[in-house]
Amino acid sequence: TGANSVETDGQTEWTDVQKKIIPWKNSTPSLDLEMVFQDRAAKLGKSNSRLIVVASLIDKPTNLGGLCRTSEIFGASALVVGSLHYIQDKQFQHLSVSAEQWLPLIEVKPSQLVDYLQQKKTEGYTIIGVEQTAKSFDLTEYCFPEKSLLLLGNEHEGIPANLIHHLDVCVEIPQQGIIRSLNVHVSGALLIWEYTRQQVIKQNQQK
Amino acid sequence: TGANSVETDGQTEWTDVQKKIIPWKNSTPSLDLEMVFQDRAAKLGKSNSRLIVVASLIDKPTNLGGLCRTSEIFGASALVVGSLHYIQDKQFQHLSVSAEQWLPLIEVKPSQLVDYLQQKKTEGYTIIGVEQTAKSFDLTEYCFPEKSLLLLGNEHEGIPANLIHHLDVCVEIPQQGIIRSLNVHVSGALLIWEYTRQQVIKQNQQK
Repeated sequence: TGANSVETDGQTEWTDVQKKIIPWKNSTPSLDLEMVFQDRAAKLGKSNSRLIVVASLIDKPTNLGGLCRTSEIFGASALVVGSLHYIQDKQFQHLSVSAEQWLPLIEVKPSQLVDYLQQKKTEGYTIIGVEQTAKSFDLTEYCFPEKSLLLLGNEHEGIPANLIHHLDVCVEIPQQGIIRSLNVHVSGALLIWEYTRQQVIKQNQQK
Repeated sequence: TGANSVETDGQTEWTDVQKKIIPWKNSTPSLDLEMVFQDRAAKLGKSNSRLIVVASLIDKPTNLGGLCRTSEIFGASALVVGSLHYIQDKQFQHLSVSAEQWLPLIEVKPSQLVDYLQQKKTEGYTIIGVEQTAKSFDLTEYCFPEKSLLLLGNEHEGIPANLIHHLDVCVEIPQQGIIRSLNVHVSGALLIWEYTRQQVIKQNQQK
């Protein structure tokens, strides 16, 4: 174990865990974030995913905690939340099972989302809304770019119209049932999985 | 709307909804179940999925309620639970958003699972355990048969060793993170999605 780590109960803990929680708009957020990516990838010895999951519109701590767990497990590069205060919520923590210690969390308030999405576009990310619209791609047919940013909608209102204009594409999950749509954590998990599956297949083809 | 339906607040409700909840081991369960499948498919005018989701080992009402919602939305043919009492649980109902009214629920206690799985094998189902074992297939590589039965593990103990022997195959979800494995509802949702995705692709190829 390296200079920044300590051993506790047989598990390695890094003393710079708190650095991974980055409020956006701190001088040079993108540079900081790049460093966090590389830092984490180096520690994990894993491939450097380019998937950002944006959950700023989501209100329920249970959904955010669940997304945090799922995003960490699939190696997303960051989870964006509307407020870092959610991390203190008991329901968040119950569902996240401590994933917030291993996944970069970034605070972007809903009012900052337009600016944030614009900046990510200039960095080469494709902005993908998870939403049913007349022009949405079916998830069975959509091919994710390596640099993908997923914007998830609010539990009740989805993605507001003013944000839809700033998306590069919408993707929807084909649903056959009678009841209302999938839970937003499950919707997010399916897109994170589909991104991951496609990346794995691409990597295997390159070998 | 047909003879068995009534209109309420603009939504169609069927008066035989309760028939859809079938305790297993009632004289001719398979025949009953076939009828429920056809009945539901005819009402929905949708394709007749052959996916059974077995959640008898799952303890938490939240996970069962979530799985009920997700299974209904993807048109699974049935959800098998360890006890029908879960349907009365407030947490189940909160997460299921009434999906239990539209999805056949079957009660198979954990002690009855071996018999149930054996019977389903004789009906042509492939018994698929969602579990990490030395011989598990990676979900990115597994091709689901049309008649698939998914057995999900317990939140803490997974699938017990005595049941592993009765499976045709195990499938695992490749995970890159540091924290412990995916929530069982999310794991189930990813396999249900992957089954659905493959069926959609097959159907499109046949056109």
